[in-house]
Amino acid sequence: MHSSAGFTVWYIPDGYIPEDSAGKLVSHESVCVLNSGSMDATVEFTIFFEDRDPIEGINVGVPGRRTRHIRTSMLTNGSATIPVGVPYAIQVTSDLPVIVQYSRLDSTQAENALMSTMAFPIKYPEA
Amino acid sequence: MHSSAGFTVWYIPDGYIPEDSAGKLVSHESVCVLNSGSMDATVEFTIFFEDRDPIEGINVGVPGRRTRHIRTSMLTNGSATIPVGVPYAIQVTSDLPVIVQYSRLDSTQAENALMSTMAFPIKYPEA
Amino acid sequence: MHSSAGFTVWYIPDGYIPEDSAGKLVSHESVCVLNSGSMDATVEFTIFFEDRDPIEGINVGVPGRRTRHIRTSMLTNGSATIPVGVPYAIQVTSDLPVIVQYSRLDSTQAENALMSTMAFPIKYPEA
Amino acid sequence: MHSSAGFTVWYIPDGYIPEDSAGKLVSHESVCVLNSGSMDATVEFTIFFEDRDPIEGINVGVPGRRTRHIRTSMLTNGSATIPVGVPYAIQVTSDLPVIVQYSRLDSTQAENALMSTMAFPIKYPEA
Repeated sequence: MHSSAGFTVWYIPDGYIPEDSAGKLVSHESVCVLNSGSMDATVEFTIFFEDRDPIEGINVGVPGRRTRHIRTSMLTNGSATIPVGVPYAIQVTSDLPVIVQYSRLDSTQAENALMSTMAFPIKYPEA
Repeated sequence: MHSSAGFTVWYIPDGYIPEDSAGKLVSHESVCVLNSGSMDATVEFTIFFEDRDPIEGINVGVPGRRTRHIRTSMLTNGSATIPVGVPYAIQVTSDLPVIVQYSRLDSTQAENALMSTMAFPIKYPEA
Repeated sequence: MHSSAGFTVWYIPDGYIPEDSAGKLVSHESVCVLNSGSMDATVEFTIFFEDRDPIEGINVGVPGRRTRHIRTSMLTNGSATIPVGVPYAIQVTSDLPVIVQYSRLDSTQAENALMSTMAFPIKYPEA
Repeated sequence: MHSSAGFTVWYIPDGYIPEDSAGKLVSHESVCVLNSGSMDATVEFTIFFEDRDPIEGINVGVPGRRTRHIRTSMLTNGSATIPVGVPYAIQVTSDLPVIVQYSRLDSTQAENALMSTMAFPIKYPEA
């Protein structure tokens, strides 16, 4: 039995899905979640924008002792999705401690660009 | 009512606006601020250089439950702006806790390069 | 005699070995470990996947006052290795405090892409 | 009078000066130090390798209210310099709190690649 490691609330301020793709790979972002513990976790995404209310309540399961690399273009709550070419930000909350890393592949030009950073952890869910 | 999350002072030592752009996208940097709480925040930028006094007192509003992706080339205090091709550093202070991430897109060559990192948080404003 | 600095458990959620290489350099990832203390350390890797059980018990030595830049493609436990083109995550535990940084070079296209981040530290080994 | 902010010991495990340059820009790494306080700081670099003893005692001044973006190829202690094409790691200690970020520009191919991360802070100088 492995106990879980990490934090339950994480933030990624710089979300952006490039509009264009060229070359071999498709432009995308990944929110990579690691659940190192034995129990299954559920993570909930909130998507913030510059000019409209957040999209809330997007849930994704991360089984125990597994990682999930989640493409942000796949995050949907009914008909609400993240539009391409729009600045946004991501909040990830989890019912169990997890570790979260964010990466973007930009293939606007045929030769790719990559960036990555750990998400920013906050210990306690906000009230 | 959502309470705010994060820190009130953040630092980014590696600021640099590339002089040149090629291809489809313009070289730029973004300071991405997330205000996850319900109250509106005001962030203040201080810009440090290698060989001259800082530019102080650049204010930007970040409404509650919103993100702002702020291009550093837009930061101005009267006639003072950040010159291109010059190493500098950024201090972000906020009247409410926020989360700050820094990213640079370099299109000096037609095929872009990207880099990103969370800004470095310090809990308390300096005296 | 130098005492060691850092943490004993680190996580990297976004592991991925690109399938293809072009141009002068080979696509790869490096887990860079710094042992700043005088005593030799042993680090143990656990590799997590999306759809199968972790690979455990891969050990690598890091001598005192030395760094090791470890290619993930070299991590093997008997016949178990990390396949290319598959999302995975990395846990690094060490018997002495160390500092861990993760970087990826993607040469899928001839012009390279780079990304890097500090691994995420957790103070105590999990039970 | 501004007080200093940050930490006095920072680590960067993934140092590497690319051997080649192409296109408009030269491959290089920068260790970007921000001294937000009013007093002048002195930072000392220690360079760790995989297969030889560290280079110690490289000092660089960072004036108060200034940033310095220091190219690692400029770090020398007498005749000791960091060779290109060799994995290494960096320790930065400072007599006053500073903030440290590390970035690499790789122009091995004409189209550049960039990576950046905050250095890893440790509060207290090692004994």
